[in-house]
Amino acid sequence: MPANEKPANEKSPIEVTAFAWVPPFARGFVRDLRVRWALEEIGLPYRVRLIGGAGGTPFGPPRPENYLVEQPFGQLPVYKEGALCLFESGAIVLHIAERHAGLLPDDASAKARAIAWMFAAKSTVEPPIVDIGAAAREEGDKPWHEARRPILEDRVRERLAQLSRRLGDADWLDDGFTAGDLMMVTVLRRLGSSGLLQEHPNLAAYVARGEARPAHQRAFAAQLAVFNNASSAG
Amino acid sequence: MPANEKPANEKSPIEVTAFAWVPPFARGFVRDLRVRWALEEIGLPYRVRLIGGAGGTPFGPPRPENYLVEQPFGQLPVYKEGALCLFESGAIVLHIAERHAGLLPDDASAKARAIAWMFAAKSTVEPPIVDIGAAAREEGDKPWHEARRPILEDRVRERLAQLSRRLGDADWLDDGFTAGDLMMVTVLRRLGSSGLLQEHPNLAAYVARGEARPAHQRAFAAQLAVFNNASSAG
Repeated sequence: MPANEKPANEKSPIEVTAFAWVPPFARGFVRDLRVRWALEEIGLPYRVRLIGGAGGTPFGPPRPENYLVEQPFGQLPVYKEGALCLFESGAIVLHIAERHAGLLPDDASAKARAIAWMFAAKSTVEPPIVDIGAAAREEGDKPWHEARRPILEDRVRERLAQLSRRLGDADWLDDGFTAGDLMMVTVLRRLGSSGLLQEHPNLAAYVARGEARPAHQRAFAAQLAVFNNASSAG
Repeated sequence: MPANEKPANEKSPIEVTAFAWVPPFARGFVRDLRVRWALEEIGLPYRVRLIGGAGGTPFGPPRPENYLVEQPFGQLPVYKEGALCLFESGAIVLHIAERHAGLLPDDASAKARAIAWMFAAKSTVEPPIVDIGAAAREEGDKPWHEARRPILEDRVRERLAQLSRRLGDADWLDDGFTAGDLMMVTVLRRLGSSGLLQEHPNLAAYVARGEARPAHQRAFAAQLAVFNNASSAG
């Protein structure tokens, strides 16, 4: 029994798909972290289904046969709960947040704004951040790679400056921690050691504040435990 | 009184922000179309607040003073309803769909899947499509622009192939038209004359099916009417 599957969790109706192996740089950043974090904030137990294996990559095969039936774009994570099979981390976190107190405000307007931050994280802030990694991975050997890097970084800088201005000296994007912050923190964490986040001390502190939440720490440790177990086994 | 603001709409508590002017290639593609379409599907009247003016661009100034208070990233549209001020087209469409029948299934699992398609449209399918336009706009004069074009197109092709496989010969992504289809159709429409959509006849038919809905036609006509009025005035 893998260390990340506690006995209490094996009976949970909730199953989250995670990778059995990813390269070291991706550990702690795979998107099942968002779903684990949301479940930990609420205190919902879950099972983990590991897919792929040592030698796989987070960006390609191997995937289980028929995985595209569960996730039409071949991405992670997939969330199962009874007959429901759900994809897209934003939709999964929203599904969890809608059904359990703790991740969305009761007030209808505040709730709508929290959901707006979820979409902003996924569709406005994340794409230019993902582009930096994609360019390094897919165009790192091209003659234009070095010349494009400042262009890509400036696209991220524009979004970070806007987000920093909005956050100001507040702890969270709205009145208290919400699923919007959960999504935004996991998006910003992807900037890793690029130094871009550190250009805005309030955003760096915001991410640190999110990472310090006990639920995040448990989710992070659970994702890493999979890879540590895989390493010790390999 | 602009032609797009019918008397019946002026008393609506709902206000949608739209551009007073965009270059011809962007007409019919500005993101307030999504919100107009959702409101038309349900039959909710709305007011339009026009911002910017002739000579402005959809990608930069002019914006009204303090616009970032309403929309932290300076984008369009902004949605107002009483005291609620909401941004991100996905969040706005979801807010409307949650409160009125017609855009989300009643069944909880089917509803969660429809929302998953909304996130998939915005965060998985749209970014590589937007990248093609952004590259032309921001890197069109760079020596690498022509060489990168096939790379960018292949990123879109991967998503289209996956989406085409999932759609198959169905009319909509799930059992009936939902807000997920509304978002996906508006995302795919951005491929315009690139020819990429036509590589998958089922996707081209899917987009045509969405565009043929009377609610889409009314929304499209209402967005275009703003620019036609601006042209005749200028």
